[in-house]
Amino acid sequence: MYTLYYSPGAASMLPHLLLLEIGAAFQLRLVDIESGANRDADYLRLNPNGVLPTLAIDDQPCRETPALLLMLCERHPEAGLAPAPGTPSRNAFLQWVLFLANTLQPAFRLWFYPSDVEGVDAVALKAAMRVRIESCFDQLDELLADGRPYLLGAEISALDFYAVMLMRWSRNMPRPATQWPRLKALADRVRARPSWIHLYDVEGLTEWA
Amino acid sequence: MYTLYYSPGAASMLPHLLLLEIGAAFQLRLVDIESGANRDADYLRLNPNGVLPTLAIDDQPCRETPALLLMLCERHPEAGLAPAPGTPSRNAFLQWVLFLANTLQPAFRLWFYPSDVEGVDAVALKAAMRVRIESCFDQLDELLADGRPYLLGAEISALDFYAVMLMRWSRNMPRPATQWPRLKALADRVRARPSWIHLYDVEGLTEWA
Ligand SMILES: N[C@@H](CCC(=O)N[C@@H](CS)C(=O)NCC(=O)O)C(=O)O
Ligand SMILES: N[C@@H](CCC(=O)N[C@@H](CS)C(=O)NCC(=O)O)C(=O)O
Repeated sequence: MYTLYYSPGAASMLPHLLLLEIGAAFQLRLVDIESGANRDADYLRLNPNGVLPTLAIDDQPCRETPALLLMLCERHPEAGLAPAPGTPSRNAFLQWVLFLANTLQPAFRLWFYPSDVEGVDAVALKAAMRVRIESCFDQLDELLADGRPYLLGAEISALDFYAVMLMRWSRNMPRPATQWPRLKALADRVRARPSWIHLYDVEGLTEWA
Repeated sequence: MYTLYYSPGAASMLPHLLLLEIGAAFQLRLVDIESGANRDADYLRLNPNGVLPTLAIDDQPCRETPALLLMLCERHPEAGLAPAPGTPSRNAFLQWVLFLANTLQPAFRLWFYPSDVEGVDAVALKAAMRVRIESCFDQLDELLADGRPYLLGAEISALDFYAVMLMRWSRNMPRPATQWPRLKALADRVRARPSWIHLYDVEGLTEWA
């Protein structure tokens, strides 16, 4: 049994989308970042870093968005959200999930929370993160250059949901991800899915629908 | 067949250690960061980011250190370097590998390469990264507080090799990881292994033996 602690539009979107795609039973618990609920003592016991998401799996709280991606893919192989171990695109799947995890998502973190880095000029830090984010979009775009519909090829995978969630976060940046035509086409495919539409409804999202 | 592109003491240490632990056949190719060989056109064709490591698996170049960790663990289950999917410590394994990947390793990157972030005061950036690195050490230390010898419990796993490699990078920082007594004990266990000793010999390392 799963319980997902989420805040609208936060990184919790990724496990939320994957749970919907899998068709797994889960409960949602709102931990609203806007109201600071992620700093409440109750939530800090589940997630000592005070960040979203946390996914309780059989009552065990688990964290780190890309780890939740890997856990959900491997617990539900029948959902086909990741190439199985030993198949040709498995290495690419792991490489690109980890690239989003160690490069693109941390760059967004600093873009949104420059004050995480005390004593550093926020404007300069954001400018540098903008360059880094755009260079990640260049790399993802390049993957699609051979005309494939999804990042790994013909089939959608959890990597696409991760990438499109991160692309969404650029919507108010000087150069949003949708300015890369192939990335926009990928986002359009993901945004047309019942899981995405349902999540917008449940999380109460409107922008970038 | 594996070919590992490495530079002495760089993040390539992790796949190097894991290959030795597995006992897999592999070739080593030196791409010396000190001499700038990682910026050569030949290497950039394998790794467009010009960073180490790259691991060629059956002639396919793969990158992102923690992705290589996951690939090697899953290709060699008999080496027992990761809890198998479905076992009790599997989620903890994935969570902590991803935490090192998205938080500790990127913080070290900015500690060593503050000029990656153009226009930002390098001294202030390093000071902030020092705080972040030390807070990661606090969290790893806390995992060991129940007296377990390894980060996941009684058995060593790839997570320990990843953590100890990163701890090594703190050796010339104001507060090296070995100042946390439990982390030092973990490092001592890993540094006593034949794989570590052999790697020091082959890569020509001396410090922090
Ligand atoms: N390493 C964490 C980072 C998650 C994260 O930064 N979440 C943001 C929302 S997208 C958050 O909780 N921000 C609230 C805060 O830091 O106060 C993960 O991958 O899950
Ligand atoms: N995201 C990469 C980062 C690897 C990385 O930053 N490697 C460093 C050495 S530890 C490097 O190649 N530095 C040389 C340079 O950037 O010029 C990974 O996880 O493999």
